[in-house]
Amino acid sequence: MCGAGSLFFGQLGDWTWEAVKAASGTNVYAARSADGHPTYLSFYYFRVRGSRQVHPYGIGFGDEFDVTSRVFDFGPQSVMTLHRLSRPGTFGPEEVLDPRELHEERREDCLYVENYNRWISRSHPDSNTGLVEASPAGFRHEHLPRLPQEYSPRGSCGRARKTGTFHEHGIPGHTAAQPYTTTYTLDRVRDLNGAGLMYFASYFSIVDTALLRQWRSLHRDPAAFSTRTVLDHRMGYFGNADADAELTLTVTLWRSDTVPGEEIAEVSVRESESGRLLAVCSVQQLVEES
Amino acid sequence: MCGAGSLFFGQLGDWTWEAVKAASGTNVYAARSADGHPTYLSFYYFRVRGSRQVHPYGIGFGDEFDVTSRVFDFGPQSVMTLHRLSRPGTFGPEEVLDPRELHEERREDCLYVENYNRWISRSHPDSNTGLVEASPAGFRHEHLPRLPQEYSPRGSCGRARKTGTFHEHGIPGHTAAQPYTTTYTLDRVRDLNGAGLMYFASYFSIVDTALLRQWRSLHRDPAAFSTRTVLDHRMGYFGNADADAELTLTVTLWRSDTVPGEEIAEVSVRESESGRLLAVCSVQQLVEES
Repeated sequence: MCGAGSLFFGQLGDWTWEAVKAASGTNVYAARSADGHPTYLSFYYFRVRGSRQVHPYGIGFGDEFDVTSRVFDFGPQSVMTLHRLSRPGTFGPEEVLDPRELHEERREDCLYVENYNRWISRSHPDSNTGLVEASPAGFRHEHLPRLPQEYSPRGSCGRARKTGTFHEHGIPGHTAAQPYTTTYTLDRVRDLNGAGLMYFASYFSIVDTALLRQWRSLHRDPAAFSTRTVLDHRMGYFGNADADAELTLTVTLWRSDTVPGEEIAEVSVRESESGRLLAVCSVQQLVEES
Repeated sequence: MCGAGSLFFGQLGDWTWEAVKAASGTNVYAARSADGHPTYLSFYYFRVRGSRQVHPYGIGFGDEFDVTSRVFDFGPQSVMTLHRLSRPGTFGPEEVLDPRELHEERREDCLYVENYNRWISRSHPDSNTGLVEASPAGFRHEHLPRLPQEYSPRGSCGRARKTGTFHEHGIPGHTAAQPYTTTYTLDRVRDLNGAGLMYFASYFSIVDTALLRQWRSLHRDPAAFSTRTVLDHRMGYFGNADADAELTLTVTLWRSDTVPGEEIAEVSVRESESGRLLAVCSVQQLVEES
């Protein structure tokens, strides 16, 4: 559940489902709406913030962490989950994770995860387009703590969904290169989950496919792609698609004007035929300049 | 951890690592040889047997199973693990899994898994070729039960490794079609684990990629690929490779002479440049004939 692939993100998301199940009294694996239709706890926003010390692609076999999770009330159709991964024994078992730590007082020796999930349902049984908001019967959320408004990702997600970027006004101190575009065919062998929807961790693999192709186009060493340090990884999930759909992946690379090797790569994922936005991903990374 | 992809096989293998850790007193995630080199509990043979009722690609969100596991002594450099997945409450918690059930008295409502793992180590730190047998310091195995000789997969694995097939003498009642060949580039975004070796579940995805391409070449409906019933899935892992290696995948399809829709597809995976055999996979499946 680690390495250069998306397995670690898959594990983080699985912890979110477990945490929501425990906190809400709803079996997220078998949830249904009041009228009996399956409802899925889909990922809408997935952010992982680390440091040079701890980051998603730097974890290896045998690394051990304490995982502290907390689930917040985000209304009847959504839920917000935070995780902190810390070295064993760093915190006592009674210490509650304060969202303030995640947003304003991050530690260098911890990894922080935000998962904003929305309950959805298919509007057509055999299609992954036209997913609609839903709420499962018996989903308890009113008793959960409220996330302070200033820490809500709703605003930034809404803008990214509308504009296709998390950086509509540019990134201070960074200069963008010409966008790089490639296509990808959604793979039924790799990219679907047990409900036939796009698997949430596959979005990370699809984005990485685009980033690696762009990396090669810059004549960078492919091996160095797997050892880059990812400080901040943000994924907004805005749509789903069916197997064999062709996707258009556009990478915009923002290089730091002052810090060598520091860059932010943004990838937008669209269904080629319709132009529908499926995801926007922003990755802040440190690369070895050769 | 279910669906048309390899996630379920990944989960099964993770259970094997957990079971071996519990049974042997060796932390398989951080094992090292006496001279301090990392040793990995690699998969050498992975077999999953199901039925029309329960099979690997037929499991969906919310399905629940009891998992009964048992680890057997297979010498200082190997270990054998069996799992049975049964519907909750089918067996009492005190009932021990008898290998005889797996081989001679399989139930239609259970799924059976054999994992034969071997401890390996790299002979060159930056290469996935030239892996050698190893044994971690402190690996306890003598106290484990012995697997009856007639249930050992050593013989069939050795022959498949030597001949490149599990079916060197053909398959009674089945007729082989002309082999289908395709190539695949080993993907650092998808196919490597946290130690930089080929991820065991990726072998399943690579084989499925070959099977799906062959499926399309027969003008079969791609959607039906995801809903086929897999009764018996056997993978022999005989080699590893580095990212970006080109692999040659050869599919031989054996159709039943008497049972419509019953077929056995065998895939051999070789490194194109060297011809080295990396894996052999035999899949017995039921397909809807349209």
